[in-house]
Amino acid sequence: MNTYNEVIKYASPTSAGAECIDPDCSWVEHWVHRAGPRKEIYYEPEEVKAAIVTCGGLCPGLNDVIRQIVFTLETYGVKNIVGIPFGYRGFFEKGLKEMPLSRDVVENINLSGGSFLGVSRGGAKTSEIVDSIQARRIDMLFVIGGNGSHAGANAIHEECRKRKLKVSVVAVPKTIDNDILFMDKTFGFDTAVEEAQRAINSAYIEARSAYHGIGLVKLMGRSSGFIAMHASLSSGQIDVCLIPEVSFTLDGEHGVLRHLEHLLNTKGFCVVCVAEGAGQDLLQKSNATDASGNVILSDFGVHMQQKIKKHFKDIGVPADLKYIDPTYMVRACRANASDAILCTVLGQNAVHGAFAGFSGITSGVCNTHYVYLPITEVITTPKHVNPNSRMWHRCLTSTGQPDFH
Amino acid sequence: MNTYNEVIKYASPTSAGAECIDPDCSWVEHWVHRAGPRKEIYYEPEEVKAAIVTCGGLCPGLNDVIRQIVFTLETYGVKNIVGIPFGYRGFFEKGLKEMPLSRDVVENINLSGGSFLGVSRGGAKTSEIVDSIQARRIDMLFVIGGNGSHAGANAIHEECRKRKLKVSVVAVPKTIDNDILFMDKTFGFDTAVEEAQRAINSAYIEARSAYHGIGLVKLMGRSSGFIAMHASLSSGQIDVCLIPEVSFTLDGEHGVLRHLEHLLNTKGFCVVCVAEGAGQDLLQKSNATDASGNVILSDFGVHMQQKIKKHFKDIGVPADLKYIDPTYMVRACRANASDAILCTVLGQNAVHGAFAGFSGITSGVCNTHYVYLPITEVITTPKHVNPNSRMWHRCLTSTGQPDFH
Amino acid sequence: MNTYNEVIKYASPTSAGAECIDPDCSWVEHWVHRAGPRKEIYYEPEEVKAAIVTCGGLCPGLNDVIRQIVFTLETYGVKNIVGIPFGYRGFFEKGLKEMPLSRDVVENINLSGGSFLGVSRGGAKTSEIVDSIQARRIDMLFVIGGNGSHAGANAIHEECRKRKLKVSVVAVPKTIDNDILFMDKTFGFDTAVEEAQRAINSAYIEARSAYHGIGLVKLMGRSSGFIAMHASLSSGQIDVCLIPEVSFTLDGEHGVLRHLEHLLNTKGFCVVCVAEGAGQDLLQKSNATDASGNVILSDFGVHMQQKIKKHFKDIGVPADLKYIDPTYMVRACRANASDAILCTVLGQNAVHGAFAGFSGITSGVCNTHYVYLPITEVITTPKHVNPNSRMWHRCLTSTGQPDFH
Amino acid sequence: MNTYNEVIKYASPTSAGAECIDPDCSWVEHWVHRAGPRKEIYYEPEEVKAAIVTCGGLCPGLNDVIRQIVFTLETYGVKNIVGIPFGYRGFFEKGLKEMPLSRDVVENINLSGGSFLGVSRGGAKTSEIVDSIQARRIDMLFVIGGNGSHAGANAIHEECRKRKLKVSVVAVPKTIDNDILFMDKTFGFDTAVEEAQRAINSAYIEARSAYHGIGLVKLMGRSSGFIAMHASLSSGQIDVCLIPEVSFTLDGEHGVLRHLEHLLNTKGFCVVCVAEGAGQDLLQKSNATDASGNVILSDFGVHMQQKIKKHFKDIGVPADLKYIDPTYMVRACRANASDAILCTVLGQNAVHGAFAGFSGITSGVCNTHYVYLPITEVITTPKHVNPNSRMWHRCLTSTGQPDFH
Repeated sequence: MNTYNEVIKYASPTSAGAECIDPDCSWVEHWVHRAGPRKEIYYEPEEVKAAIVTCGGLCPGLNDVIRQIVFTLETYGVKNIVGIPFGYRGFFEKGLKEMPLSRDVVENINLSGGSFLGVSRGGAKTSEIVDSIQARRIDMLFVIGGNGSHAGANAIHEECRKRKLKVSVVAVPKTIDNDILFMDKTFGFDTAVEEAQRAINSAYIEARSAYHGIGLVKLMGRSSGFIAMHASLSSGQIDVCLIPEVSFTLDGEHGVLRHLEHLLNTKGFCVVCVAEGAGQDLLQKSNATDASGNVILSDFGVHMQQKIKKHFKDIGVPADLKYIDPTYMVRACRANASDAILCTVLGQNAVHGAFAGFSGITSGVCNTHYVYLPITEVITTPKHVNPNSRMWHRCLTSTGQPDFH
Repeated sequence: MNTYNEVIKYASPTSAGAECIDPDCSWVEHWVHRAGPRKEIYYEPEEVKAAIVTCGGLCPGLNDVIRQIVFTLETYGVKNIVGIPFGYRGFFEKGLKEMPLSRDVVENINLSGGSFLGVSRGGAKTSEIVDSIQARRIDMLFVIGGNGSHAGANAIHEECRKRKLKVSVVAVPKTIDNDILFMDKTFGFDTAVEEAQRAINSAYIEARSAYHGIGLVKLMGRSSGFIAMHASLSSGQIDVCLIPEVSFTLDGEHGVLRHLEHLLNTKGFCVVCVAEGAGQDLLQKSNATDASGNVILSDFGVHMQQKIKKHFKDIGVPADLKYIDPTYMVRACRANASDAILCTVLGQNAVHGAFAGFSGITSGVCNTHYVYLPITEVITTPKHVNPNSRMWHRCLTSTGQPDFH
Repeated sequence: MNTYNEVIKYASPTSAGAECIDPDCSWVEHWVHRAGPRKEIYYEPEEVKAAIVTCGGLCPGLNDVIRQIVFTLETYGVKNIVGIPFGYRGFFEKGLKEMPLSRDVVENINLSGGSFLGVSRGGAKTSEIVDSIQARRIDMLFVIGGNGSHAGANAIHEECRKRKLKVSVVAVPKTIDNDILFMDKTFGFDTAVEEAQRAINSAYIEARSAYHGIGLVKLMGRSSGFIAMHASLSSGQIDVCLIPEVSFTLDGEHGVLRHLEHLLNTKGFCVVCVAEGAGQDLLQKSNATDASGNVILSDFGVHMQQKIKKHFKDIGVPADLKYIDPTYMVRACRANASDAILCTVLGQNAVHGAFAGFSGITSGVCNTHYVYLPITEVITTPKHVNPNSRMWHRCLTSTGQPDFH
Repeated sequence: MNTYNEVIKYASPTSAGAECIDPDCSWVEHWVHRAGPRKEIYYEPEEVKAAIVTCGGLCPGLNDVIRQIVFTLETYGVKNIVGIPFGYRGFFEKGLKEMPLSRDVVENINLSGGSFLGVSRGGAKTSEIVDSIQARRIDMLFVIGGNGSHAGANAIHEECRKRKLKVSVVAVPKTIDNDILFMDKTFGFDTAVEEAQRAINSAYIEARSAYHGIGLVKLMGRSSGFIAMHASLSSGQIDVCLIPEVSFTLDGEHGVLRHLEHLLNTKGFCVVCVAEGAGQDLLQKSNATDASGNVILSDFGVHMQQKIKKHFKDIGVPADLKYIDPTYMVRACRANASDAILCTVLGQNAVHGAFAGFSGITSGVCNTHYVYLPITEVITTPKHVNPNSRMWHRCLTSTGQPDFH
């Protein structure tokens, strides 16, 4: 049986004591554990009170993960399962009550998008949250959230450890941008790429149907361009794809705008896809942050829209620009089949991890294997598109865009 | 056989000579003709050159109408069918060539949205256009477009008459807003209401999943609120629906903003649907017009977004607003089944009308009957939602919104 | 206020006493009443117990109607609303309990297809059902069902009248086939036509991609071919449409099979759409009936499949036939936007009708007006496609099929 | 530069001469080559005539692969690209002409399902085909097809080698069942799982809405149950999943039918998903084969349907069974976003492989790497679901089904 000491040890990934679950698998680092059920479990299921909280913005699949955590907890025999409403805020905001969860309650929540529990940003007042966890006698806390919420989950884990509370804090990464380090794919990403096709195709139809039509689609991707890259590649309708990882100039001989002129002259229309975090060096800096602590980015999509309009007005060439920002319509979708399976496995593994006595971990898929990783490791920095990768080169081949320098 | 004189006469609906096609049908005014094939035709099909042009913004079903006009012309035996690219502009803009059309070319164009011929606004230089019609030896001109393009079509018809040209100018009304006078329904409207559900449901999911979430959806409807009304009613998820025909106040005791406060306090979230032309009296006036001659409206959706944000900030109540403008994604859709049938019939009837020797008419459905109407009659003013109608009252019942005064 | 006598009188549409609600409207027959709320109501809402039952097969929109009946009852102030599970069977089958209904319970049921209450066929043991109604102290019974269930509803109404029970029995016609007499359209039909596109397009893709491909799609339509006709017309992909109202021969010089040969020789492929009730004269007769009392039809789709295969084998011409029967996938859909509005209005009107003291009526839309009709009138015979109508001729024009005789 | 000898050598994967492209990557076996462009190319692009042929049944993504092969060939500078119509049959059937292909022709073919070139089964008369290849002066043949077509492609490759023809035969595996050895995933599989959700959800809605409803869905999977397993897992609505790799009994104490009884008694309804190739040991054997040489399986879906009906009739328990076979509607879909990317990469790599001088290879993704594999290796046997794998166990956990023995 895992002991609580192991749990505590586990949170220090560098400690020598962490064992490798599958020693034959050479790719497994010492601080990576293969996910799944363990023979011995650390909690008495009948006595466990488990809580689930969803933090940050919406992402397809949230309800699938909640549903599967509840199903798996019930399979273990847990009777006392609650949802914390509206993110961490639900721990301390007056008037917000925890929601009893069971198979009956969550049976069909995966059929619609959003979060059945509600989400919110920020509110990571660690001490208050742990007070609340203590008062509520919660043994397992499942946090479904992004980078900031993972940092919050880890702080809760650390504080619980400091107070000698036997609480397992297990996270499931929720980032539609697919930008969590070490993870092959995060849930919601595949659905987002699929749903983005609808916006891209609309932009394509609008552009092709207009005289000198330009379609401009802004997709999600604060610091990484995975959605923009994959959506461009799969659509086959994009002429220019701009992502945060690859710098570019708008003006000048080799700038994007000149290329758009070229496309209008040759094809008669064009379609541009930009990640929201692209071209930040071209915008005025801001130091403001949102409630989750994310730096508020200047809106590159709107900037691009204005630049294109101004440019073609200045040079006296007609251009009929249509700007589409499908963000909320993409986020609010229900998970597609592929994400539904991913959510199922991640949710099951989160529960297995908690019962195995782990805390301060997150449940993911790494190099095709489902694993547990220490939260501290995955939040050091976002995962980025590698501009030298084959996938980015395939994207460039598909768009036919030059180097914008 | 209809004579050309009849055609000319027809353009003056008040002239006593216009015959009623179906004299037994009491609802038929003298200037309304039942649509459909006639026993005698005014043109020799083998000698006819027919042209099709699509004007204005995109609307679901444009390709269905084009396709059906081509099919029906071929059924009559017409060999020479061309598409004029990018609206009226295609008549005079250098470098734009007419596109030969046939069954093979248009067979599958209805499977995607947009206009196969391209659209553009404005360009109603009547004299130049008629010069071009003369030079191209066009006998029939099918104009698919909105109010402005109908006015243009009528001017072309008048100019042809003045020059004694034997040209039939037949229009098909294209207004996604469903705001053409006398018409039960215009093509694309049903699809737009259907597609708007996606945006409304996203707004609902976002609002319900957020703490004090407010979803705000702007739908099409410059001067009439049919899309907003029907979309609100069919979704069953809207709390407030604002349309151009019904005035309202935002501020004050009985204003919209106070009602939103109430909804946040009671339901915890709310969803608002606004037509783009709503609340124009609350905005700064503008006299600018677009290339089609439409007055450029101030954007009420964005105005509403700013007012809501400011209001809740001012009163110190948290509110998480998500604004969705699905306009281009709705417009670029392909027609749904119901619109596909409507487009089929309207397109067939347009051709029947031209062969019957009519000119200056438009093809529509009026009180469940397919008819021809003089263009001059339908463009006098847009059709409006009647605030005393049962449908608007049903919408109010569905939203539960009070009178905002 | 309507008195109960009026209700009783109402059930005899020929009785002179029935008043016309809107005497100015010349199209209103004496036994047709305009639907909608009345100034005076026949029940004390707080004392009413209302029950809803859904009978027969699934149809898109059932949940929308249930939901709207509940909403409207609550608007009147009714507190005691129940659902009878699984059709009439729920009145007498042991172990089936009535389900309490309220806004909270039904709020989102329209987001999925099927019937929230469950359906079943048959079970019209009138006497037992009325015993149960009496025992449960039900004042209003809303029956959503087809022809057979309407007959059942009327029998219940008659039995209540005989027993001097003050019970309003109000029906809403549910027939995906759109075959209820006097009704412009029944709910679910529009959705069915829309959803059938998916099957037709699949059949088209399969046929076009195969060498001598033949796609065969069977659609709903026991005694009337509305779905097949509308779906063929809107798809624009059908070469042959066969419906119950129009007889045809398969074999012989002018038979369907010879035409398919012709299509394979000329186009290389073809797509055929058949209504399930087509060609019954070509099949062996059966006298069996299902639990609802409908005669069990021989399956023409399968018959056609076998005939085509045999024919091309016999004449030694390769033919690659793909047969698609999308029935359950069409029936189980949720309502589209257009049907959602129809369901909303029909459900509201059903409640208005009950409160107005009507019984033995059904809620429909007739010549664009929402009305109440006596059940006895609408069930005399199914509505049929008129083979001389413009719509069927448009369908023939679209398919290009000859007269198969 | 690769020489033709290398190509020939390559076809013998056991030959010692085959070099590993990326020697540092330990997982690469000697006969696996990393896919992608090579520095030196074996053909002079301007002189190349390339042909594409699609064989077997439809699969989502066929048009994406065709399109990408054409695009990539054009990028290399190939001018002479043709499509062979209707599979191998197009090589010898009189009256079938090769279709010239170019970017313009294939630009939008990915927007609809099916095969732009047409497919057919069988026709692997190797000698005639190679005669035709010689006569047409084809240098590169791209074969998109399943197991049987791969065997055919290899026979063509061998015959070309025997005749000393410099022809590269490169395959892309097309099996919606995902059952090609060594491949992580084949194109179309992901789309099929997604699209199957629609059928499963319909079966669920039908079953849940009926009294003692049983939904039965048959999905593709002749010898492997990947689609059934993934679709069951992602839907979360399946109670019993039966696949070819796991034997089961229908009758008896621990049989499937008894379990269905149990589900009707407890849940009131149930949904069953069967792969078409499941339970072949329970059916009468057949030795017949289709034109592709595949053994014709007895139809387990229909067998199951009959067994369930008979069982519940025999035991006198009502059961309302709905059987859905969505096969053609799934096959005829266009590729989803994830498959579109896979098709893009596989198509590009097929062309790179041909230019690198390879022949007798197929283009796939193996352990997350894109590779070339010798056809001979991948066709030895189909890939199967491992009944001891985690994924199958997750499926069992999700359905809650017992061991049926």
